[in-house]
Amino acid sequence: MQAVMSIEEMQAYLDEVFPQIKGSFLLDHLDGKTTVMRLMVEDQHLRPGGTVSGPTMFALADVSAYVATLACVGRKALAVTTHCSIDFMRKPVADRDLVATAELLKLGRSLSVVSVSLRSEGQEGLVAHASLTYSIPPEKS
Amino acid sequence: MQAVMSIEEMQAYLDEVFPQIKGSFLLDHLDGKTTVMRLMVEDQHLRPGGTVSGPTMFALADVSAYVATLACVGRKALAVTTHCSIDFMRKPVADRDLVATAELLKLGRSLSVVSVSLRSEGQEGLVAHASLTYSIPPEKS
Amino acid sequence: MQAVMSIEEMQAYLDEVFPQIKGSFLLDHLDGKTTVMRLMVEDQHLRPGGTVSGPTMFALADVSAYVATLACVGRKALAVTTHCSIDFMRKPVADRDLVATAELLKLGRSLSVVSVSLRSEGQEGLVAHASLTYSIPPEKS
Amino acid sequence: MQAVMSIEEMQAYLDEVFPQIKGSFLLDHLDGKTTVMRLMVEDQHLRPGGTVSGPTMFALADVSAYVATLACVGRKALAVTTHCSIDFMRKPVADRDLVATAELLKLGRSLSVVSVSLRSEGQEGLVAHASLTYSIPPEKS
Repeated sequence: MQAVMSIEEMQAYLDEVFPQIKGSFLLDHLDGKTTVMRLMVEDQHLRPGGTVSGPTMFALADVSAYVATLACVGRKALAVTTHCSIDFMRKPVADRDLVATAELLKLGRSLSVVSVSLRSEGQEGLVAHASLTYSIPPEKS
Repeated sequence: MQAVMSIEEMQAYLDEVFPQIKGSFLLDHLDGKTTVMRLMVEDQHLRPGGTVSGPTMFALADVSAYVATLACVGRKALAVTTHCSIDFMRKPVADRDLVATAELLKLGRSLSVVSVSLRSEGQEGLVAHASLTYSIPPEKS
Repeated sequence: MQAVMSIEEMQAYLDEVFPQIKGSFLLDHLDGKTTVMRLMVEDQHLRPGGTVSGPTMFALADVSAYVATLACVGRKALAVTTHCSIDFMRKPVADRDLVATAELLKLGRSLSVVSVSLRSEGQEGLVAHASLTYSIPPEKS
Repeated sequence: MQAVMSIEEMQAYLDEVFPQIKGSFLLDHLDGKTTVMRLMVEDQHLRPGGTVSGPTMFALADVSAYVATLACVGRKALAVTTHCSIDFMRKPVADRDLVATAELLKLGRSLSVVSVSLRSEGQEGLVAHASLTYSIPPEKS
């Protein structure tokens, strides 16, 4: 697939539609197949014991998979998550950024499927792995 | 299964270990099989368009399933989510509480499986349905 | 939802489109919300140790969820499974029928979501629990 | 991880414990991280329309992920599938082998997590993608 939005356009779009994540989630890379996004871990994302909370990991997986879809279909804020399956495998490192690599597995007329791997920066084993599905509404004409 | 914690003990425990959700997530019911928990929806949980955000729904599903497990095994803050599969089916209503009903499907020696249904209070169709698995560490002796 | 096919119409339809399961999978109940289907367990469905094989359980969950969808949209052999998430929780009893109860959680314009519980007949705990999604193609006009 | 069984040992073991798949499922590759297994598609695996059936795809994903786990823990026929999440994305090609590539994402003391990609041989897009979890019983001493 060919990306139809640049990384700057996408970051600006995210800051506009998801103001609550502004300054926390940063796009590292974007092309028609792979999206890399990082969470700059701060105190608000941590649970007791110094680990990144599950909802924060879910949020990072969801936004990066959403971006991987939008990158190919363009600005459609109405694309909605219909399914997420996520395996939590290792405790994230508290003082490292959490990095999501999202790969667009399928882009159909009405849905996309995206696979996301989460790693603590510089660590080898996966922190979590997710598969997400988005429903893409038909263009209004 | 028999619950080994009362609703008051559980709410106090949650306020202690998850201070960030204090005042937002409220236990309505707790027994050895079914847990009912509500999110009192506020602006911080909403996305543009007035809908409850995906990470907030994930958080409610996760906490209610965790409670359904703890209710039967007792205070084990180390029980960790290993998997969540969640289907998002309908847009939650913005000005209603979001209510999770968690049912303990299995409690084994090392894992539990919990099914969770999310509804906007007073609405019929499900907003989301999730299955979650927790790894339960062996007792330290 | 209102069922648009009777149990006899549905069984005849299944025998026609899935001849390979004829005589093994039997419809017990069908209405607009709940479908009950049984697998009459035979040697071909068993694994060493006398347990029903995973693919056989998957097949029963898939067919019963497909039926729960078709019951409301009518004969659309092209409705296809896009996702299945299944938790295997207890070993099925070898000499009992395996009974699936499928509940239609959502029927949208382009997809359905169905929750399925599998039990060995007469046993209390669930053998497995699954959530399945079907893509429903638009009517050809 | 280091594999503790060779490809010949594993194939012999599968033929012994899963006689029903003998001659259909063939191991192409095996190391401590990645397992490649092919289904030699025959009439018995097909559905009307010439497509490989869902239960057959599930079976291939399950066996290849089981092999990826056993390759590192040795012959433990009691390792059991506790979860499978599978996305079906494209129709498999009827007259091509179906090839599964299983990657061991985590091997813990009591569970393994494996990611599996299914392709029709020689085709680019994925037919299906699955994540599976196995419960690994403790060694009897």
